[in-house]
Amino acid sequence: MRRSEFEVHDKAVFEELLATCEYGTLSLIDEDEPYGVPLNFVWYEESLCFHGSKEGRKAEVFRKNAKASFSVVKALSLIPSYFSNTRSASPATQFFISVQITGKIEVVEDVSTKCAMLTALMQKLQPEGGYDAIEVTNPIYTKMVEQTGLFRLMPESISIKFKAGQNLSEERRNLVIEKLLERGEPLDLLSVKLIQEANKKA
Amino acid sequence: MRRSEFEVHDKAVFEELLATCEYGTLSLIDEDEPYGVPLNFVWYEESLCFHGSKEGRKAEVFRKNAKASFSVVKALSLIPSYFSNTRSASPATQFFISVQITGKIEVVEDVSTKCAMLTALMQKLQPEGGYDAIEVTNPIYTKMVEQTGLFRLMPESISIKFKAGQNLSEERRNLVIEKLLERGEPLDLLSVKLIQEANKKA
Repeated sequence: MRRSEFEVHDKAVFEELLATCEYGTLSLIDEDEPYGVPLNFVWYEESLCFHGSKEGRKAEVFRKNAKASFSVVKALSLIPSYFSNTRSASPATQFFISVQITGKIEVVEDVSTKCAMLTALMQKLQPEGGYDAIEVTNPIYTKMVEQTGLFRLMPESISIKFKAGQNLSEERRNLVIEKLLERGEPLDLLSVKLIQEANKKA
Repeated sequence: MRRSEFEVHDKAVFEELLATCEYGTLSLIDEDEPYGVPLNFVWYEESLCFHGSKEGRKAEVFRKNAKASFSVVKALSLIPSYFSNTRSASPATQFFISVQITGKIEVVEDVSTKCAMLTALMQKLQPEGGYDAIEVTNPIYTKMVEQTGLFRLMPESISIKFKAGQNLSEERRNLVIEKLLERGEPLDLLSVKLIQEANKKA
């Protein structure tokens, strides 16, 4: 991140991002090797929850080294260099919002908690429902809940980063906004909204 | 990854994924902490290239520990549990293709190589052009090329993973395909194409 990009600590932005991004990437240390794992997840009870095999590489790594960092990105518009009316390629960039959650992984064993976490994950990724409530007493779930690994990243630090033109002069930022509105893709309109929010706060 | 998901080693799929995904997440080890960094990148001359500050946290980490793993994800359709005609939530999933590149980071100092890497990055993210060719002899670039850090991840191992219904029975897979075609979003049509390709190869 460049110096001119700044961190915000805005719970609403954070929760919105985690509610709308389907997956993120978990960075782990396997012995002395970095290991990245893309995962669907849900933010539930102040922790980052996900499921997986109880016996796979992830679970093995957690047993040896519970430290983890989870990265979620909402990519915004690509900003072509010529939006800044320049012959130089240098202004080309991509705006984005990202969240980084760092902490330790806990393995969840309690079956009611496992059911609650799976329910939260389903409510996020299949909000329209269309399945029996996930309860361990329902025989269609007993074995699945027992066999599925549930994990939660307990955050020790959280950072949220916006890159949305804060390093630009007001004149150049207004030019970028004008060009984004002209291009007018749905992502561009969202980018404009976020540029305006980010630079109001700056 | 579940056992039933498989790795493919298909250069065309790999290059297509890296050419179309705008960003990925670099997993690093900072002292003994995992550290994930989302980045725009380009696959150029058999390495994963990106730029950034010469003095930021990333560059500092590379100097101490060059090991890195880069994860790129192309998320495909969310598959609701009810696509499988079941009362259980268990079949809910998301199909995806992902690439994991593991190796060591090199800092690129040679200015012609830096220009070539920046050119490759621009050709990927701004294919329509609209800027002067990036050459160190062009005075609008001299300072920028000098000041920008260019880095490349030299791969020691690469894995490509598809999750596209390979663990489903043929009957259930056909049902999922039918429902995806019915829903018919652009991503669903792409998912169907990839499910068919993945399961032809399986």
